[in-house]
This record gives sequence, structure tokens and C-alpha cells, in this order.
Amino acid sequence: MYERMKTQIEEAQEGIISSQMKAVAAAEGIEAEDLCRSIAAGEAVIMTRGRCSIGIGRGLRTKVNVNLGTSTSRVHPEEEVEKARIAELHGADTITDLSTGGDITAIRRTIFAATALPITTVPIYQAAAGIGIGNLTAEDVLATLKHQAEEGVSSFVLHAVSREMIDAAWDGERIMGVVSKGGSMTAAYMLTHDAENPFVEHFDEVLAILREHDIVLSLGNTMRSGCIHDEMDEAQKGEMRQNARLAAYAHERGVQTIVEGLGGHVRADRIPVYLRRYREHSPAPLFVAGPLPIDTAVGYDHIAGCVGASIASGAGADYLCYLTPAEHLSLPTPDQVRAGLIAFKIAAHIGDSIKYGMDDEDLALARSRSRLDWDGQVAHAIDPETARALAPEPGPCTMCGDFCAVALMKRLREQR
Amino acid sequence: MYERMKTQIEEAQEGIISSQMKAVAAAEGIEAEDLCRSIAAGEAVIMTRGRCSIGIGRGLRTKVNVNLGTSTSRVHPEEEVEKARIAELHGADTITDLSTGGDITAIRRTIFAATALPITTVPIYQAAAGIGIGNLTAEDVLATLKHQAEEGVSSFVLHAVSREMIDAAWDGERIMGVVSKGGSMTAAYMLTHDAENPFVEHFDEVLAILREHDIVLSLGNTMRSGCIHDEMDEAQKGEMRQNARLAAYAHERGVQTIVEGLGGHVRADRIPVYLRRYREHSPAPLFVAGPLPIDTAVGYDHIAGCVGASIASGAGADYLCYLTPAEHLSLPTPDQVRAGLIAFKIAAHIGDSIKYGMDDEDLALARSRSRLDWDGQVAHAIDPETARALAPEPGPCTMCGDFCAVALMKRLREQR
Repeated sequence: MYERMKTQIEEAQEGIISSQMKAVAAAEGIEAEDLCRSIAAGEAVIMTRGRCSIGIGRGLRTKVNVNLGTSTSRVHPEEEVEKARIAELHGADTITDLSTGGDITAIRRTIFAATALPITTVPIYQAAAGIGIGNLTAEDVLATLKHQAEEGVSSFVLHAVSREMIDAAWDGERIMGVVSKGGSMTAAYMLTHDAENPFVEHFDEVLAILREHDIVLSLGNTMRSGCIHDEMDEAQKGEMRQNARLAAYAHERGVQTIVEGLGGHVRADRIPVYLRRYREHSPAPLFVAGPLPIDTAVGYDHIAGCVGASIASGAGADYLCYLTPAEHLSLPTPDQVRAGLIAFKIAAHIGDSIKYGMDDEDLALARSRSRLDWDGQVAHAIDPETARALAPEPGPCTMCGDFCAVALMKRLREQR
Repeated sequence: MYERMKTQIEEAQEGIISSQMKAVAAAEGIEAEDLCRSIAAGEAVIMTRGRCSIGIGRGLRTKVNVNLGTSTSRVHPEEEVEKARIAELHGADTITDLSTGGDITAIRRTIFAATALPITTVPIYQAAAGIGIGNLTAEDVLATLKHQAEEGVSSFVLHAVSREMIDAAWDGERIMGVVSKGGSMTAAYMLTHDAENPFVEHFDEVLAILREHDIVLSLGNTMRSGCIHDEMDEAQKGEMRQNARLAAYAHERGVQTIVEGLGGHVRADRIPVYLRRYREHSPAPLFVAGPLPIDTAVGYDHIAGCVGASIASGAGADYLCYLTPAEHLSLPTPDQVRAGLIAFKIAAHIGDSIKYGMDDEDLALARSRSRLDWDGQVAHAIDPETARALAPEPGPCTMCGDFCAVALMKRLREQR
């Protein structure tokens, strides 16, 4: 008789330390038993593809996701593959393939081949782009889920948007309305066909597919605010409650779950407030896109987003979705992918310094810097390649020349 | 009989609203009477050069300073002039000329000619570079001050470092020691000649020069931490108390004063803590360089610094000194000056959104974005030039193509 493999949650709840838990605990420098308990409690998940296992959640380093993929107006699969390589090379933890243009299955396969990292998809994208929202059925949506699950996708983003949330967004004071692509596709299916949310209506079936392959459920953030003005209205509060409820339900059924929230545009001082509110609703790892603390950093949203993500991760967000300089403007180029990724690795590191205190890397870098040891600084830099390219010749840098404070004070101290 | 012009403080204390106060109040959209009261109380200053007046302090928008200038190992005056033009073009509030290489007076004059912005200098740089620390006397230092004051410098940075602070830094646990260039030059003069701090010893004379020209005194931050590990030790605490004391003394004598502090490397969660502590010591506007919340963002210190500066200005810092991607590595190129400036304008805007709530620019940008109006988004962007270069053709962007959530939801709503 065929016996389904146990999910990480099911193993954790039986006290079994899986090989994935061992690998993640070793990478994080924590006890596997602690990780096992967090997974059993739904406070952490492991996203896996092949031999690559990434832990996300309580007690773990803040992780960074890179979005890539074609759109209907720009289909250059070779560029998306290059982005995947850049993401892995520069330290992304996971990749999300958001392709909606071209042969989506073929593109996903080339991305699979280009990187070992866990891959997330938003299955409604392929369903809507491949079949069209007008012809789509709930069966198609489930079939897409199944098809992608069998291919080895590590995590699915599903949007549990409801009629009530859509009405709340429309009847409220929002300027930007609904800005989530997957959420709007799901809403369009519901409104066009006067149908229920296919994921919520068939949630047990969805969970069965996810459990079968131990795919991480990521509950999407349809109602995220598209500008500072729109933050945390009734629609968002409703979605937070709904996602918390579904996360608890999925967890009880052995499906690892994370919740997307607090994303979009949120004023900096409110980010920790909303984070605490989320924690009152759910123990599930929190995934945030940005958030962006201002609207006006057009062309620099990776920098403004780095500020929001630093504050969010410092306040307890577990997993950051990067933004690139092209956010709101275009599909990012490979260079923009890299710029966005590094900015969010900086945010994750800042967040971790708040969560866990100073890192050994910062200490090692400071020690190298105090010796004017440029090689050491390069080795401990977040982006060693850029650091190497900018690092000066041995000795004081051209900023200081003969007046290097470190060198001058060292001489004076020796004369003391 | 020659009668010295009154300083802004002296006018404010007599209830006179100067033309500079009027100009600043109009630019800030506040009542001139409120500004006048803040200046009288030493909570705000006006930095002036010619017709350009910039207000810094309580109730005013957070300001951004751009550092530029030659070093002994890189003297390209034309590049420094280009940096000054870039700084003004992209919205810097003030410029600090830190030249230590070449003909410093001539370079300062070309920078004066290239920009209308207020100019700050660190006079010990010219004194030390021109005369040499070994030959320097307190009279030379005062003569440099006088010479630069007569030329029309808007603000001087003076380092009130003491023997006790130096000993505290050396005897403590610091990895990086003292990293302030001006502070280390001042310390080197003191230690080489077994002399008092020339600025503190002759403080009344210094204040007379500043009062004569209504130059803003900026009390430097010699003891700032050069890495996260070194933050807020006894040396820094001593300097904070000393600077607060000197600021109060200068204010009583009609000299507008700001204090540099909290600069260097400070863990993100401690920034608001230290800011509150500073406010217990002094009402003077606080000028921060960075701070950098991590050490490892080599080549990206403008981004890590943007996070620290956002948190600092949100917590009450009034004036930000930018960092460029070249920080710790080299003199910045003109492009790096621009990158650093924009990052810190983002930080100032984030800080102001925390201090004063949402800005009209954010609202206007959101309204343009909700209409997919790219021209409107460009007009309200922090860096319109970059936004224009990256903005797509009219219609949905290539990120979303046919699946623009904003357009899709609008169609659905109209069908409701």
C-alpha cells in the first residue's frame, strides 16, 4: 500500500528530527530540538527543494525572497534564468517565479534547472494566464495546483480573498484600491463567475495536495495597502483574521503555513504596531513585501523598502520579499534584481541585529577595518564582489589620505 | 560707530522676525512666530549664505547635508565643483567642504561660486593640512576660523574633544578607536603640543568670531562609534555632556548652535534610546551622520545609513549627514554623491512622515499612481529625473502587462 511521506509538521509533532530539520538547525547554529518544537507549533516552516532546505520563522535568521518571471508584455526566459542565477549567487534564500507570459511551464522548468533554491509560485497566475479568467473553473485551478505540485514547487501563494473584503476595500476610503496581482485575479474569477473563492471553497482538497508534497502554504495578502494613505483598513483587518484562521486550520492538518501580511505601503512608525497585532492573531511565520514607508521613492523602492523591511524584521517579521528599483515601473533587469536583493539582505541583517544582537560578521568586519585590512573587510561584507570592486589599494583610502583618523590615533596611542 | 549685526538668536529673543525667519517659515509652511520662538530657545537655527536660508531644528523638515572636498591623495577640484552642483540640483539642503588637499582656499571659493547653498567647513582641516599639526598653534587655529568666517562660511564644525575623552576611548573596549577626522586632528594637536583643546580654551574668542558673522556652531562628534561594538561608551557619554554644556553656553552668548551626535555605527533598536538620552541633555538641533545600524554593508553604506537615518530622524534628529556608497572606501564620485543624497532624502522623508504624519507629496503620488498617470508620479517623486528615466510608456507597466491589478479591479468595480 502506498504510504504518503510525513510532512515536517507531522514528524515534528511526533518528536522526529528530520534530516531537513538537522540541516536547517546546523545552518542556523541552533539546536535541532528547538527547531523541531517551533515547527510542531507552527511557528517555523522548512521550505525544501531537493537537498536545499530553508527554515523560516521563530528563532531563525530573517530570510529574503526574490521575485522574478515573465509578464505578458515582456517574455525573455533567458533573462529570468539569469535573474535566478544572480539571486542564488548573491544570497537569496528563496525564489518566486511569477511568470504570466510565454510558455509558463517551460520557463519554470528552466528556472528549476538554473537554481537549487526553493521555488514558490502563485498558481492562479498560470491558471489565469493559460486558460483566461473568463473560461476558468475551480477544477482548472486545482489541476494547476496539482500539476505544479508534482513538478516540485516548494511553496504556493494562495489568496483567500472574500467578497466581504472586496466590498470593504471598494466601500472604504482607499486611493489605490486592490494592488495584489494574484488577489485581483482570484477576485476577478469570483466576480466574473459569481463563484466562491476556489481555494477557500476547496480548502481541504488544496490542503491534501500540499500535504502530499509537503508544500508550504503561503496565504497571500490581497488587501495590502497600495499607498500609505490606505493602510490597515477594514479590508486588511478582515484578511488578517481570515488568514490567521486558515493558517491554524492548515496547521492542524499537517500543512506548513506562512502568512503574508503588513506588505505594501505602511508608515514606518506603524509597522511595529501592526506586527504586534498580527502576532495576537497567529503564530505562523510572517512574510512581508517591503513594506514601503513612503510612496515617493520612485526608482528607489528597494531603498525605501529596505527601511520598512528592517523595521518589520526587527519587530518580528520572519521572511522578506525584496523590492527592486523597478518596483511600480517595470519588470526588473538582472542588475536591478541584484540591487534589490542586496538591499533586502541588508534589511534582514539589520532586523536580525535587533532580534538577536550583534552578529559575528559585524565584529569580524570591524576588526579588519581597525587594521585597515581591506581583504578582511571584503570577506565579511554582505556583497563581497562589490566591496572588492570598490576597495582601495592597501593603506588608507582616498577619502582620508594622510589624515586617516584610525592610523593617526594609533600612532598617537603608541607614543603615549 | 560700527555696530555688529544681531544674530538670529538675538533678534528672536527680542521678538524680531528677521527676513531669514520669514523665508524659512514660508518654505516650511509654518508660522514665523513659532520659528522665532524655537530660535530664541535654541531649538532651531538658520544657516544662511547670501539669500539662501535653511532652517534646522524643532518643527522643521529634516535636512540633509552633503559632504564633499579633496583629500591629500585625491585632488580634482573640478570634480568637487561638479559634486556641489549635483548636490544642489538633487535637493541637498547644505554642503560641507571637507577639502584637505590642494589649494584649500581656492577650492572653497570655486565651490562657493558653484552653489548657492549654505557651506559648512571644519576649520581644523585647513589649519592642519596647511600648516601641519607639528607646527600648529592655537593662534593659527583662530586665524583660520577668522579667515574662513570673513569669506562667508555658514557653519563651522569644531571638536571639543578632551584628554579625558581620549583616555576613556583608549582605556575602554573599543575596536575602532577614534574615527573622526577633525576630532583626531584636534586630538593630535593637543597631544603633540601637550596643549588644551584650542576651541574650548579660547571658546569666548571663538564665539565672538561666530557671533560677528552669525555662523552656526556645529559641535563635532569625535567620539562617535566606528563600529556597532563600540557604541555609547564612557567617551561618548562624556562628549555628549560636554557638547550639551558648550551648546548652552554658546546659546546664552547669541551663537546659533547644533550638536553632532549619535553618529557612526549604532544598532537600530538603540538609536531612539540614545536620541531620548540626548534630548535630556540639550534642546539644540541634533545632527547625525548615518548612523549605520550594521558594519557589513560595505559599498552600500548609503542604504544601511538610510535605515539608521530614517529611524534617527523619526525619533527626533533634525539634520542628517549623508553617506555615499563609497563611505569607508574612497572619496565618492559625483554619481556616488547623488546616490547618497537621494538615499538620505528618502530617510529624511521617512523621518518626517513619523514626526509630522503623511506628506501631501505621498498623497499626490498615490493619486497619480491610481490613475496609471506616469507624468504625475514623476512629478511627485523624490528624484524625478530617475523616475522619468525608468517610467514606462503610457498604460500598465511591463511588470504587470495584461494583469495590472489596478486596471483589472477598476474594470470589475465599474461592472458592479
